[in-house]
Order: sequence, then C-alpha cells, then structure tokens
Amino acid sequence: MSGFMNSRYASLEAYTPGEQPRDKQYIKLNTNESPYPPSPQVLEALQRQDVADLRLYSDPEGLRLREKLGALYGLTAGNVFLSNGSDDILNFAFMAFGEDGAVFPGLTYSFYPVFANLHKVPFETVPLREDFTVPVEEMKGRGKLTVLANPNAPTGIALPLAEVEEIVASNRDHVVVIDEAYVDFGGQSAASLVEKYDNLLVVMTYSKSRSMAGARLGFALASRGIIQDLETLKYSTNPYNVNRLTLKLGEAAVDSDGYFRENAQKIMETRTYTAAQLRELGFTMPDSKANFLFVRREGLDGETLYRKLKERGILIRHFSDPRIAQYNRVTIGTREEMEAFLGEVRAILEEEGLP
Amino acid sequence: MSGFMNSRYASLEAYTPGEQPRDKQYIKLNTNESPYPPSPQVLEALQRQDVADLRLYSDPEGLRLREKLGALYGLTAGNVFLSNGSDDILNFAFMAFGEDGAVFPGLTYSFYPVFANLHKVPFETVPLREDFTVPVEEMKGRGKLTVLANPNAPTGIALPLAEVEEIVASNRDHVVVIDEAYVDFGGQSAASLVEKYDNLLVVMTYSKSRSMAGARLGFALASRGIIQDLETLKYSTNPYNVNRLTLKLGEAAVDSDGYFRENAQKIMETRTYTAAQLRELGFTMPDSKANFLFVRREGLDGETLYRKLKERGILIRHFSDPRIAQYNRVTIGTREEMEAFLGEVRAILEEEGLP
Repeated sequence: MSGFMNSRYASLEAYTPGEQPRDKQYIKLNTNESPYPPSPQVLEALQRQDVADLRLYSDPEGLRLREKLGALYGLTAGNVFLSNGSDDILNFAFMAFGEDGAVFPGLTYSFYPVFANLHKVPFETVPLREDFTVPVEEMKGRGKLTVLANPNAPTGIALPLAEVEEIVASNRDHVVVIDEAYVDFGGQSAASLVEKYDNLLVVMTYSKSRSMAGARLGFALASRGIIQDLETLKYSTNPYNVNRLTLKLGEAAVDSDGYFRENAQKIMETRTYTAAQLRELGFTMPDSKANFLFVRREGLDGETLYRKLKERGILIRHFSDPRIAQYNRVTIGTREEMEAFLGEVRAILEEEGLP
Repeated sequence: MSGFMNSRYASLEAYTPGEQPRDKQYIKLNTNESPYPPSPQVLEALQRQDVADLRLYSDPEGLRLREKLGALYGLTAGNVFLSNGSDDILNFAFMAFGEDGAVFPGLTYSFYPVFANLHKVPFETVPLREDFTVPVEEMKGRGKLTVLANPNAPTGIALPLAEVEEIVASNRDHVVVIDEAYVDFGGQSAASLVEKYDNLLVVMTYSKSRSMAGARLGFALASRGIIQDLETLKYSTNPYNVNRLTLKLGEAAVDSDGYFRENAQKIMETRTYTAAQLRELGFTMPDSKANFLFVRREGLDGETLYRKLKERGILIRHFSDPRIAQYNRVTIGTREEMEAFLGEVRAILEEEGLP
C-alpha cells in the first residue's frame, strides 16, 4: 500500500483469480474455461478493417448486440445490460442495490463478499445444508439484496426454476440477482421470469459456455428500471467498457447460437463420464449442472491431490477455506483431457496406497 | 430509475459521452479519435488462433505488456497499471485517493466531477484565468487529491513540465494525477518524474495518439505503492478487465512505437494549418497542444455552428455549460477532413452574413 489509500478500503481483501502459471503448459482444469474454441462464425468475424476501425470508440450502448440478445431471450434491447464480463455486472449490482445489506449462501462464488466489502454492504450468509444444497426457505423474504448463483459454485448444484421463482417472489422490495454463469450446462434459466418480476436481475456471461472468457463480455437481463440503474453506474465509471472487437464477436456468437449449445452438450456428456469414473475411484461429489465437478476422496487430502496433479502438469482449483479444503473443483475439459486427468488421479491414488 | 437504487447514488448525474449517431455517415470531429488506423504491426497482429484462444481468460496481470510499457518509459512493470481505458483508471484514482477531497481546474475533463460525486469525494475547482490557462499557484499544496489534465481539455492548453513538477512537489502527502490523454500531440510528459515522486500518478491512454479508442486500453505510471493500491481495487471489482486481443494489440503498438509518433506529428501539422485557416476566418482559440482546437467566432453562436455543421455531415463537440457555450471543440482529422470542415465553415459564415 502507498500510504495514500482511502481508509475506507484499507482492509480490503481482493479476490484471488485462479492461477495463470507461466512456468510450463498445463492441462488447465482450474478456471472453468471451455475446452472448445468459439464458433466458426466467431472465428471468421474479424476482418482487417475491424482492427483498423479500432481508432474509433465502441458504441457505448452496444445497441445491435443488445437487440440480438434481447430477441434470443424473448425480451427487448431495453431489458439487456452489457458490461466487461459478469464480474463487472455483479460489482455494479452490489453497488446499486445493496443499501439494506445483502444475503447469499455461505458457500458460493467467493467474489460476492469482496464486492460487499468494497461497497460497505453488510452481508449475511445462509449456511448450506450438509449435502451442499441451498436451503431455499432461508433465502426467502430477507429484506436485502439477495444473490444466488444457480447452478451454485463451487458445488455445481442447481435449484429448479420453481424454487428460484419462490425466492424472487418473496423479495419484491429488493433486487434478487440470479448469477447464471453456468446455467447452460444443465440448469434452468430465470430469463423467462424477467417480464413477470421487476426485481429480478439475471446475470450471464460469455466466459463459460460461449467460449469467450478472454473477450470479456457479460450481460444481464432485467426490467427496464434495473437496467437503467446499472447504466447510470456504468456511465459514471467507464461508458465504453466493452471494446469494438468484442461487440462484433458477441454478435457473431448469437448468430451461431446453436454451436455453443452443442458444445455444452458435449461437456455435459464428458461430465457424466468423468463423474462415473471418479466415483469408481472412490470419489464423492454433488450432482453438478455446471462445467465442473466438486470432488473429494476419503483418505486423500485435497491440497495433496491438487499439488500432485500440478506436478504432473494438470491444474485444478483448490480452495484454502477449511470447510472445503478436502475438496477440489475440476473443470470439465475435452474427453482426452479428462482421460489424462483420470490417469494421473489413478497414479496418485496408487502412490498414496489408496485402494 | 427502478426504485431499488441505493440512495447514495440517487442524484448521480452520469457522464455524457460524445454522440455516436447512427442516422448517417459523418465526418467525425467530435470525440478526439485519431483519423489514422493503428500501425501495420497492430493490423497484422491478430491471427485466427488468437480468436480461438478467447476461450481462455486473459492474463489479469498483463505482465508482458506492462514490461514493454515500463521499458518504453524507463520504468519497470511494477510501475505500470493496466485497465479498461483511462476513464477506468481515473475512476479508481478518485475512489482510492480522494479521502481528503479533490481539487481540479474549473474547466477540464467533465468526467472528473462525475467520478468525485460517485465516490462522495468533496471537490473544489480552481477557476481558469480569462485566457483559459491554469493558475498553477492555486493548484499547489491543496492537501487533497489533485487532478490535472495536461494538456487540458477542452482547451488544449499545456503546462510546461517544470510547473507540473511544482504542483507534484507541493503535494507530497496526496496523490497528484496528471491525465496525459493528449500529451503526445506536443505536451511534455511527467513520466520522467515517476521515480522521483511517490505521489505522482501519470495516466495515459491508447485511445488518442495510439489510434486504439475502440480497444479500451489505458495505463498508468506511478510508484509501486500507488500501483498496488490501484490493483487492489481492480482485483476487487473486475480482475480481467483488459481482454486478450487488446493485450496483444497493445504489445504490437509498443513494438511499433515510432508509427504513432509520426501520426501525431502529422496531426500537429494539420492542427497548425487548421488553426491558421480558422484565424483567417475570424475565429479565436487558445494555443493547443492536443489533437483538437477549442474555437469560437465572434458573432456566431456556438450551438448554431455545431448544429449547422451537423446538418452538413460534420460532427464537432458542443458543450452546454454556459461558460463555454460559445465555443466548440474540433478534433483534428486528416488534412482532407479539415478542408471539408473549413469549406462548410466558410459556407456557414457566408450564410450568416459574417465577414
């Protein structure tokens, strides 16, 4: 710290992104990226002229892309907010709607408490049940900004839409954020509820199922009033935060919407296969509707598994939080990547003398 | 507004970006973009594989680009902060360093009061002199975050480095932000002072001289402590806010650094020519070291000139602030664009019966 920092932020603990090692090439199963490239239309979308046109600012309204996304979800451009990745939107949501505090599950995306602390939003957490499911009743009518990742991270467990609707309906005086970063891998989206509930904010991302983590594009679907509030904050911080190339690629991705849904299907099949193989090896895990598995093996320390896999060129995500230190989150890659992962896991189990 | 918005932001007036009309093609002299494309190396930098690799997150540290930019300015990567355009950095600066309030010139980049209001930073302004110059003495030792655009906007007037240093040296207990968005068009950069003053934050952008407004890339040079504070805020809001393609293009631009300096030279020559022509037509303006001119014509209403030029397909920037409503800011385009602009100005003067 410089000594000049505002005391308001002096004790801030920033979010720790998944490691991006530079020492060698890893099979990267640690940050929930897609193993598949974006669609052929996306790969072909950029012409030399687009790079030349970078001399011009991007359209701060992103109107064409908002129209396309609105149409995709049966809504209008006025129901769509674009920003620099979904973290950016979640940050704005805590800033805009956290005046009465916030509530979210005790185990969820670890960025939520960071946003809350940054904006001095007092928060409560709802402990998960023993089986890592969210106790829905305790998320109802809390009189606060209510934030739910569905499917949840790092567990992958999804709530059915009817239960999500109960949470939204019970909190009509406060915004309910449904963070659907992983919804395309088997969850049910709340997008269909946007027209019914003016307090619902559905946050989505191009980073996972759409294979565009590096393009930085998130979007949100909500009532016009909520979208306008988010726009006020965006226009008060960084109006042009989505760049020209990303806007164009984002449109190409909507134009080839079927492509990423096929990839999501492949990933779900690989997830089913990987889960079955891991269970045969004695691992346990919740039922995942996301592009990752949250796994533990009785008798095998979580940090040890992480470290030994890293030595063998495979990165998975380990969390130091003691409640989940025996678990690891494993992103679903290609079938080949998962075979390599399973092969190393078998070798490690043998090394450790585990049956 | 939705009714859910935090009362802290209820009266927020967002920044108004320059208009991006969709009704027809204009000669765009309203947002200080470069008329020239990025360098040939930048135009060639993106391969199909780079788009395919968008499935992966960008390097949140942007280490390679920071090393290159550090070297370019005689500093290290640890002295460089990257973010999604320089607005993003200015926003973080008000957030991080405004605890004791802020001070900036009374006429300057109109985003500063927006950032200040957003973060509840009380601010004072130092009125410009009659000739629009900044009264340097009044920027000294103010005991607050001190923000100076150099060259200033929308006037284009630059302070010499020695006077900038006096301001920095007189405020050692507070951060002094020198916003050098336009410095490459004839100003003197304070980058050379970064090693000497740990309270100096020099903010730069790829949007103007480097012809990459649409890529969204800003950077700042400062002592390691200030950079760490900015990183804490970035990692608490949106760690990956610079996308993969922009990082690669940004590196290619540093590798072809001479190219943009040649363009800046051409723009300065066109500025000299345009200023002389306008003076012959009875316009007055401050001496600009930026890629724009801040002009008025006795007898010709500023808003009228703006409107009549727009009808004729030429966009310039008009400000509604009554102190400068008789002025317009005109971006320097290519020589051909400025000839077109001058031709329409002559026609309008004739139409208005002005000698």
